[in-house]
Amino acid sequence: MANPPTSASATTGVRAAARAAYFVSDSTGITAETLGSALLANFPGVTFRRHTIPFVDTAGGARDVVADIQRAADGGAAPIVFATVKSDLIMQELALSGAVVIDLLGGHLRELEAALGSTASEQLGQFHGVGDLERYFARMRAVEYAIEHDDGQSMRALDMADVIIIAPSRCGKTPTTMYLALQYGLLVANYPLTDDDFPADGLPSAVARYVDKCFGLTTTPLRLSQVRHERRPSSTYSSLAQCTLELRRAEDLYRRNRVPFLNSSTKSVEEMSAVIMQSMRLRS
Amino acid sequence: MANPPTSASATTGVRAAARAAYFVSDSTGITAETLGSALLANFPGVTFRRHTIPFVDTAGGARDVVADIQRAADGGAAPIVFATVKSDLIMQELALSGAVVIDLLGGHLRELEAALGSTASEQLGQFHGVGDLERYFARMRAVEYAIEHDDGQSMRALDMADVIIIAPSRCGKTPTTMYLALQYGLLVANYPLTDDDFPADGLPSAVARYVDKCFGLTTTPLRLSQVRHERRPSSTYSSLAQCTLELRRAEDLYRRNRVPFLNSSTKSVEEMSAVIMQSMRLRS
Repeated sequence: MANPPTSASATTGVRAAARAAYFVSDSTGITAETLGSALLANFPGVTFRRHTIPFVDTAGGARDVVADIQRAADGGAAPIVFATVKSDLIMQELALSGAVVIDLLGGHLRELEAALGSTASEQLGQFHGVGDLERYFARMRAVEYAIEHDDGQSMRALDMADVIIIAPSRCGKTPTTMYLALQYGLLVANYPLTDDDFPADGLPSAVARYVDKCFGLTTTPLRLSQVRHERRPSSTYSSLAQCTLELRRAEDLYRRNRVPFLNSSTKSVEEMSAVIMQSMRLRS
Repeated sequence: MANPPTSASATTGVRAAARAAYFVSDSTGITAETLGSALLANFPGVTFRRHTIPFVDTAGGARDVVADIQRAADGGAAPIVFATVKSDLIMQELALSGAVVIDLLGGHLRELEAALGSTASEQLGQFHGVGDLERYFARMRAVEYAIEHDDGQSMRALDMADVIIIAPSRCGKTPTTMYLALQYGLLVANYPLTDDDFPADGLPSAVARYVDKCFGLTTTPLRLSQVRHERRPSSTYSSLAQCTLELRRAEDLYRRNRVPFLNSSTKSVEEMSAVIMQSMRLRS
């Protein structure tokens, strides 16, 4: 075993070096990476070198990973391994690496077995498997719908939309739309609020009849100006004055028409999607 | 406490009723839902009624959830709660519900504290927080790039692409492209292989010079025919003969040009994305 205990790093002079963190999975590694990263975020004082290794589903594959981990340790602090691996045999191989192995799956499976009074099935877990064909179709359709209805490009089939996201340019409509489509298979259209839409008090005529499906986005003028500056530097479009005006008008419009809305400036695409789904009662 | 022990369900005649499962989070609930669903998938004999409750970040919010859980239990088997909640106070509230609470976070944080020899920071975990603005920009740019370069619509800026996905129509190019863009901020273009592209031996001229960035998709003729039938029933386009021909030609093209490729028929969008990233060495 080439791996000394954790404390050895203090004496080898590599204390400031980044700690190796592995996300190892018998499937895509997405869950290991997401939960593992969330856990690591609680230690802002430590720097990590991250490696995701998906599809580790044989003992031979596990031995390759172990060799990799041992090279990464290289006499320094023991690497951290976040594992979503169902096979006991593979977990045993990983334990031989000398790394700190955090099992994101096995312990919870035992808890569930106790709660449900039944034994987990023997197959490898299908975390992100293809599932049923119907769900796959729904997702494909949703992504295509989102592309077709991005940025007010098409007004066709708006009556099918689960949500219509409205906002001035660059408030985060497009990525939020795509996330809702891909992650949840929802039909999401989005429509830009431009200067043309503001003389009247009501919603733009294209979406007015679907007011119950509308959800508004806003942001801070400074943030909007920064984001627009990325696209068109030093333009009226990206000026703080123009951004301030458009956001104020958009928020007035939302309030007048009782359209629920959200400030996107401090929120990730995932957070905005979760708020929209909760607000529009799109999930239980 | 209204909740009897699990075994009571056997005597109340609701044994066959669905068991309530809650995904409770102080953030979006995405991690709780993903890992919780993966764990539940190991018990195919049990039916679950699922509820995701995001943004539970106050004791008052937790008490509302507890009331909800107790209503769901209604004298039957104890609900299962998967929690990604950092606050001990909120976890204590949830424990009062009488449900089986599976803590996806706390135990692993203690393991990490021991391994790193330091204490987790006190702030609420930012699972899916906005992170740095740079990463947000990268993701927005990637989604816009993907929309612009979907289905060979634009050949502009292909030299910037991290990957160009090529395949006959309906093999899964578009959702895979969007997933890679949204989840990883990669610049992904996709290009359809049509009959016009097959007389020659080489790749279509539009993408030939980027052969090192190309990744091919294929599927089974039957699956392709099913998927195409969804769009254009009883057409030549969706006929088994046409699908068989196009897939054979596409696979020949991949092999002749040493383009790595993948059969999408049994793979989810997440799995395909993970394979593509591994194959193109787009993550460490």
